[in-house]
Amino acid sequence: MKRNAKVSTAVIRRLPRYYRHLSELQRTGMVRISSNALGKSMGLTASQIRQDLFCFGEFGQQGYGYKVDSLKEEIGEILGINRGHTLIVLGTGNLGRAIIQNFQFSSNGFHLLAAFDINPGVVGTQIAGVPVYHADELEDFIAAHPVSVGMLTVPIMAAQTMCDRLVNAGVRGIWNFTNHELAIRREDVVVESVHFSDSLLALSYMISQREPAAGAETEEELE
Amino acid sequence: MKRNAKVSTAVIRRLPRYYRHLSELQRTGMVRISSNALGKSMGLTASQIRQDLFCFGEFGQQGYGYKVDSLKEEIGEILGINRGHTLIVLGTGNLGRAIIQNFQFSSNGFHLLAAFDINPGVVGTQIAGVPVYHADELEDFIAAHPVSVGMLTVPIMAAQTMCDRLVNAGVRGIWNFTNHELAIRREDVVVESVHFSDSLLALSYMISQREPAAGAETEEELE
Repeated sequence: MKRNAKVSTAVIRRLPRYYRHLSELQRTGMVRISSNALGKSMGLTASQIRQDLFCFGEFGQQGYGYKVDSLKEEIGEILGINRGHTLIVLGTGNLGRAIIQNFQFSSNGFHLLAAFDINPGVVGTQIAGVPVYHADELEDFIAAHPVSVGMLTVPIMAAQTMCDRLVNAGVRGIWNFTNHELAIRREDVVVESVHFSDSLLALSYMISQREPAAGAETEEELE
Repeated sequence: MKRNAKVSTAVIRRLPRYYRHLSELQRTGMVRISSNALGKSMGLTASQIRQDLFCFGEFGQQGYGYKVDSLKEEIGEILGINRGHTLIVLGTGNLGRAIIQNFQFSSNGFHLLAAFDINPGVVGTQIAGVPVYHADELEDFIAAHPVSVGMLTVPIMAAQTMCDRLVNAGVRGIWNFTNHELAIRREDVVVESVHFSDSLLALSYMISQREPAAGAETEEELE
């Protein structure tokens, strides 16, 4: 496998989608797929797919397509699924709880170690088998257990403070659901934010494009 | 404003980020911003920003930058924020509840009308002022109240069925949190999926790139 530091953000963003689609194909029992067919199922062209994968080395055989399981495995390797990454959750409100209970951390290569909160009603309990500690114990916990990523589902007012504490304690990534633009002073720490509003606004744009423009009826009548 | 049907997906994906950043700048009291400064705050180049905005018409004045409030307003218009879009939520488990309670639907141009569930414990109650109806009432509700978007936070097993019911009842968009790849037969209905795993795997990739490769120590020793 090539390690290419200059892979574009757009390609990085597509890699998880490849992984997801290949996992789906594997579940349906498909053994081999052409770049045409893979492209069709993902809304990409075959040449786009060949270009994307070429960033990481040679995959597939001319005229034979890709072997679903080995391509999935290679992309998983590129994504770091076998690195033994660990994760903790900060904030066990509805969103934190929903993700702890329903998200398949292990299929994404993450071991969910613990959750933290300040609410006495949940500290000391377990959520889906995950122990919930008091936020005061955060630094001691991270010192004792290497943590790759801290997931932030705290209220927005607490976002930057908890982010700073995670970074100072040595995590390497922040998975941010707080809708706060986190400021990070260290170049070796990565923030990945899930902005629900970006997604809903993109949907708003797409449905608006299919509607008559506001006032368009009038204009058309005048023509 | 130009209406350009051929805007690339990448540009569409950036529009909500522009809107978010401009809203943030507006809150901090900034009146005018150069494409350089806007680019810096968003991790884009000035020429990228000029190109993106050029897809939709002429904004800003050479040498004077952009007026924050009017650019925000124009982008909001493009995104369809003033179209009076309406939304209903299907599934009021932890995730649905978290989004109903915390997400600012109205700042994103959506009026949240109602939620639906089958759990007798929540049907007939309100969540943050939003009435919860039984899923059996879905079609009657949509017939009586125009619904632009149905948000799916149901269990994955119910995803396709509820999606089909929404589409048949006439919604124009599905905001999908179920991690199921929904099949839609109608070209005039748009699906926007939030895949938490795509986001976590992108983060996994980014932190993995900053680690020594698995087994790299050995290889280096051998060199």
